[in-house]
Formats: sequence, C-alpha cells, structure tokens
Amino acid sequence: MTNPMQDKKHPFQGHKAQHFKFETDADGKVATITLNRPEKKNPLTFESYEELGNLFRALHRASDVRAIVITGAENNFCSGGDVFEIIEPLTRMPMHDLLDFTRLTGDLVRQMRACPQPIISAVDGICAGAGAIIAMSSDYRVATPEAKTAFLFTRVGLAGADMGACGILPRIIGQGRAAELLFTGRVMTSTEGHAWGFYNALHERGALLAEAQKFARNLADGPWFAHAMTKKMLDQEWAMGIDQLIESEAQAQAICMATGDFRRAFEAFAAKAKPEFKGN
Amino acid sequence: MTNPMQDKKHPFQGHKAQHFKFETDADGKVATITLNRPEKKNPLTFESYEELGNLFRALHRASDVRAIVITGAENNFCSGGDVFEIIEPLTRMPMHDLLDFTRLTGDLVRQMRACPQPIISAVDGICAGAGAIIAMSSDYRVATPEAKTAFLFTRVGLAGADMGACGILPRIIGQGRAAELLFTGRVMTSTEGHAWGFYNALHERGALLAEAQKFARNLADGPWFAHAMTKKMLDQEWAMGIDQLIESEAQAQAICMATGDFRRAFEAFAAKAKPEFKGN
Amino acid sequence: MTNPMQDKKHPFQGHKAQHFKFETDADGKVATITLNRPEKKNPLTFESYEELGNLFRALHRASDVRAIVITGAENNFCSGGDVFEIIEPLTRMPMHDLLDFTRLTGDLVRQMRACPQPIISAVDGICAGAGAIIAMSSDYRVATPEAKTAFLFTRVGLAGADMGACGILPRIIGQGRAAELLFTGRVMTSTEGHAWGFYNALHERGALLAEAQKFARNLADGPWFAHAMTKKMLDQEWAMGIDQLIESEAQAQAICMATGDFRRAFEAFAAKAKPEFKGN
Repeated sequence: MTNPMQDKKHPFQGHKAQHFKFETDADGKVATITLNRPEKKNPLTFESYEELGNLFRALHRASDVRAIVITGAENNFCSGGDVFEIIEPLTRMPMHDLLDFTRLTGDLVRQMRACPQPIISAVDGICAGAGAIIAMSSDYRVATPEAKTAFLFTRVGLAGADMGACGILPRIIGQGRAAELLFTGRVMTSTEGHAWGFYNALHERGALLAEAQKFARNLADGPWFAHAMTKKMLDQEWAMGIDQLIESEAQAQAICMATGDFRRAFEAFAAKAKPEFKGN
Repeated sequence: MTNPMQDKKHPFQGHKAQHFKFETDADGKVATITLNRPEKKNPLTFESYEELGNLFRALHRASDVRAIVITGAENNFCSGGDVFEIIEPLTRMPMHDLLDFTRLTGDLVRQMRACPQPIISAVDGICAGAGAIIAMSSDYRVATPEAKTAFLFTRVGLAGADMGACGILPRIIGQGRAAELLFTGRVMTSTEGHAWGFYNALHERGALLAEAQKFARNLADGPWFAHAMTKKMLDQEWAMGIDQLIESEAQAQAICMATGDFRRAFEAFAAKAKPEFKGN
Repeated sequence: MTNPMQDKKHPFQGHKAQHFKFETDADGKVATITLNRPEKKNPLTFESYEELGNLFRALHRASDVRAIVITGAENNFCSGGDVFEIIEPLTRMPMHDLLDFTRLTGDLVRQMRACPQPIISAVDGICAGAGAIIAMSSDYRVATPEAKTAFLFTRVGLAGADMGACGILPRIIGQGRAAELLFTGRVMTSTEGHAWGFYNALHERGALLAEAQKFARNLADGPWFAHAMTKKMLDQEWAMGIDQLIESEAQAQAICMATGDFRRAFEAFAAKAKPEFKGN
C-alpha cells in the first residue's frame, strides 16, 4: 500500500533549480545542492534566498530524500549576500521591505532546521556572511584547510544578529569565541573551526565533496526516520529545562521504538545481517 | 539536637543492592557504585535501571553520603541496555509499555541530577548507550585512555534522543560534535572526550578509581551543603534568561551565606586552620 | 541638531572615581577602568561593587563611550571580595542584608551585560572570585600566560552559584569544565582558559593592555550602534527557542539596516573608502 504522506516525490525531483544545482544520487536518497556562480564566489541574491528556502520547505515532506549535501562551485562555498545585488538595494528600502528581507533570510535557516534530512555542509575557500550562516545551520560540517569562514555582517555596519547567529553560533563554539567572530567579522580558520567544534572534520580539497557525500550516504542508508527525530529533538530541546527535555525524549524515543525499523534492526543484529530501514 | 530531615541514614546503608555493588568509605561519606556483570561488560537490565533510579532517589535525603563514584567492574564501564534482555522485549511492546520504559530510563537521569551529591563517573573500556548517558549525566568524568564512549542508539534504529542526550550532550561538548555522535553512534575516543570537555581528566587504568575517589573525597570533606547548591543551580539555570539567573543566584548564595559552614570557613581562614563543614 | 538621548556625556566624564581609575582616550571613545589597590591585588569592597555597578549603569546612556577595557594595577587583575572587609561582615549579617549584598554583586554583572559598550577584560596574575566573574561577564577576554583565574567561592564554604556563574560560565567553556571549576575553586590556567574558549587570546605581560585597548579601539571606530545590538542579542537570545531567536534577529537586523551607518558603510565599500559610523 502506498502512503500518500510518505511516498510523495519531492517537488524538486526533475525540476530545474534556477540559482543553484540540485542533483541526487542514482537512488535519489542523497541530494547535493551546489551554489553555482563561481565567478563571484557563489553569492546569494534575493532570488536564490527564496529558491533555497522553498527547496528546503519542499523537502519537509520529501521522504525519498534522506540526506542533503550543500557545497559551492569551484573551490569556494559562498560569498554571502552580493554587495551590489543585495546590500545596495537594502540601503534604500523602507522598514517594511527591510523586515520582509530579514525574515526571508531567517526563513532559510528555519527551513534548513525544520526539514527532516540531516544537512552536511562541505566548505572550501570563501564562506562568508550568509554563507557562514548556511554552514552554521547545517547538522554536520566538513571543510578544507583553505576554508575561510567569516560572519562579516559588521563589515557593512550591521549587527552580528543575522539569521540566528547570536543564538546558534555560541552553542556550537562557545559564547566567548562566537562573540569575537560576530563583533569583528574576522575569518575563522579551518584549524580554529576544527578545534572549536565548528567543523567536524577537515579533508583535502580533492576529497572534500566525496567525504561529505559518503557521510550523507551512511545516514541515508541508516535509520532515517530516527535521524529525523534526532534532528528535531536537537532543536526542540534548545531552550528546555532538564526535566522537560527528559520527558520530551521519553516520548520521542517511544515513537521510534514503535517503528518496524527498530524491530528490523534488532532482528538484523541477532541474525548478524544488515538491517533495512523503511521509515515505518 | 538531631534534625530528622538531615541525619537520616540513607535507605541503602546496609542494604544489599541486587544489580550492582554499593560500597561506602569507612565514614560513609563517599559511596562507590560498581556496575558488576563483567562477563557482559556490565549491561543494564529493566531491574538495574529501576534499582539505580531508586538508589539515587533514596540518596536525595541521605545527607550522610556526600559524594558518589560510579564505575564498572573489570575494565569496562557499562555496555548499555542489554540487546537480548532489553531490546528484544521492547520490539514487542505496546506503546503504553514503551513509554513506561523510556520514562523509567529517563527517570534515572532525573534522579542523578536531582540528588544533592556530586556524581563522579570513572570510565574505562566500553561506555555505550545508557552507559554513555550515565557518564553524561554525572557532574565530573574521568577516564582511561582505553575508554570508548558511544551514544549508539542509532545502531538499533533509534533516535539519539534518549534519556536527555539531545539536550544535555550539546551543553558539554558543543552542538556540532554532539550532533555527530548522536547521528552516527560512533565512538568518542578518550583523547577527543578530553579535548572536547566531556572528560575532566584522563588517568591510567591502575589509577582511575583511586583518582575518582580522591576527587569525591575532597568534595565530601568540603562544603557539601554549598556543593549541593552548586549542583542544583547548574541545572536550575539551564534554560533561564540572564537577568533571571542572576537573581536566582543572589537567592541561592544568600542561603549559603546564612549557614554556619560559611562562618566557620571564614574563621578557619582567619586562624589558618582547616574548616569543618557540617551542612548547617 | 543635537539629540538629547544620544549626545549626553556620561556622568563619569570628569568625575573622579573613588575606588578605581577611570580614564578615556583623547577622543573619549575608549574607556579604561583600572582596579587599583595593588598592595592587596585589587580586591573589591562594598563601596567598589556599588561604584562599579553605578558606573556601568551610567554608561548605558553614554553614547560617547564606545568600548570599555577593564584591567588591574600592577600585574594582578582582581582578588575578589576582600576576606576581612567583605567576608567577615557577611558572616554576621541577617538574611535581609545578605540578600541585599548578593543582589548588589549580581547587579554589577547585570549592568555590565546591559550597557551597550563591548567590555574587554585584560587579565594578568590573580583573577579570583568576583574578579573571575568580572572577566566572565565581559565580551572579550585577553590574558597573560601568568593569569590565574579561580571561581573560589567554595573555598569559603559558599556555592559556585555567585553572580551568575552557574548559568554563564557553562556557555563559555562547556558544562563539564564549568562544573569542575565551580565545585573545586581550582585555578584555570591561561593555557586551559585559551584552549577552552574563556580567553580569546594570550599576550605577554608587556603587551597585554595595549592589545586590549587596540581591540577596543577597533570596535569603537566601527559600527558601534550595530555592536551594541550584537551584544544585546547575544544576551537576549540566551534562552530562546530557535524559531523565536530567528524572528528576533530579523527585527534586530532590520533596525540596523535602517541606519545611516549601514548606507554609509555600503557607500564607503563601493568607493573603496573608510566608512564613518555615527550611530544613526
């Protein structure tokens, strides 16, 4: 029997994204998004913010896609909002439009966090502004030694409070280091990023994307329903008290224990076989 | 005068625990719990979850015990919920029983956090699943270089959201590292655990338990009423705003300043003597 | 046109502080507070707590001061509350006065966090008790290799819950390390403090203050209105959920985008010139 909630192909399957490349593995389980305007180091524009946000929103219900890799074309991740295409128009906008814009960019982070698939960022070269935010908002981050990540909003006279950075970055690298990066906009090197827990691992340029996709593949072939619950609870418990988060996990894990995935995983373990995860 | 609230001996004094060893120093102030089923690397069972939870609940009022060490027998800490004794029955349970179980395991964490004694985990060898959670839920963690800690719920098709891990682990080692461990179930080595702030110190196998007990002894001989307040406030302020947590500490510390322990500590300092802490 | 809200000189300009030195650069933008009782390693007293709190409160509206450095005279930062001038009287106080005192000390942290200027601590030698709290409550911390920071409330029989330490320190260095420092009162070395994210950088003694002031100067010459928003949001989002903090930043950043600072920064960028930040 087909479950219409679950087996719906995601709307981007076969659809041609306008502002980035969207590709999937042969079985469709691992999607790779490539920010793709390398001559400008893959900046974001009003249109690409919106298209990215819509993509992640569409992925909320696309259970055929199990993990997502984000990367940038030609040795840079993303240079952030383009100065002339985004910053200049913003300097002339009335408040209503400004708030529309900051909510649009914030919505990208919200959709990245709300979609059930773990998101893996593969960061090389420039990773600046909104690019740094995309990396920050992912679930797992790998980088090359050449990656340069900067939350450089301050460089155009803005606050570090952009798309959730003042709330999210401190939980990843600590309050003191986050404050420094957000006040100064300075580059965080790969070495710092790895030592501080921003990057989970460093890889040479030639291996970066393959390593990110291998990590994504392992998650996609694993208990993806449970992974989605892990992702949901990591966010859900962000600001809960300890007693409350313990009860929330008791409920969340009881849901996972009621799945066939759990039973099949046990049976495979007992039979020394490989389990199949169906998300039900 | 005897205070019946304070001087009651804890119910486990002289009681023989069924599923682990419970021993105290000669003066009863430092208790050592040893998970003790070494042929299976000290797994937990339905019965041991419950007995452990009840022990920590009993310790809430046992002011004769001032600090607690948890360790495992014969070079392993704890292999977690036993696959055949726990996982298998769970795969056949109705939701009501599943939720009873996840609340039972969550209650162990809650009781560990709620009891006033600081808890020191001494981790060697395998520290997996619920074993990793017990270490995570302690106040201080020491390990050997051979310790292998893994939050491996995902390996049986479950979420990382188990017994509070999605909420608590990120506060110890950072959101990005915690996400990796919970999504993959991979081993965190001792070196990683120390660098990331999970382990407070590493010791050779032969010295591990003695070092843990020495740390516990120092706390037990110190201002244990104030230590209990430190522990309470570390949890209590988990999800408070800054203004609120400052006021909460103003109240908590005023309580401690009203104790004889504080006065005696000052007098001992002035007299260059060793203070005696009575918890009043 | 003069804006009375904005151009008011802060009340300490020209005022002689009694319990510390208060000096500003020639243009008044960078203020340096020097705890200055070196023969006792710069302790705090009832009077200096109050004067410091009042200073930071006055600075809330002092938009001529853009960044603040705190340091201690003669190779020590601050030895905390003086044992004979503060601890001894506290041992004899009724609860009402105790609570007045703990609220007074907590208010210092609150005012440090509430003033819009980023605060840079330059830590050398002893940094103990309330001194460690002042460093912790700053936005950026530099230290010498000789800095010894200790949250030593436990040494006089008190809780680690002092002036916000149980809530704030874990967000900077992680829950496990913070617990250890607060339970034991032991010294955190400079090497540890740097590795753990407490100190942003280490400098030799002879360069410490100059480096702290250079960092402050860079912030003071930058978009100080936006910096104040960064500081505000780092605190404001402390205990917010992810969806809520994203909306809060959308509002905060829209405010910054409506400023002339933002427009001038863009224009300077386009003209490859240096922007002028006026805070409007």
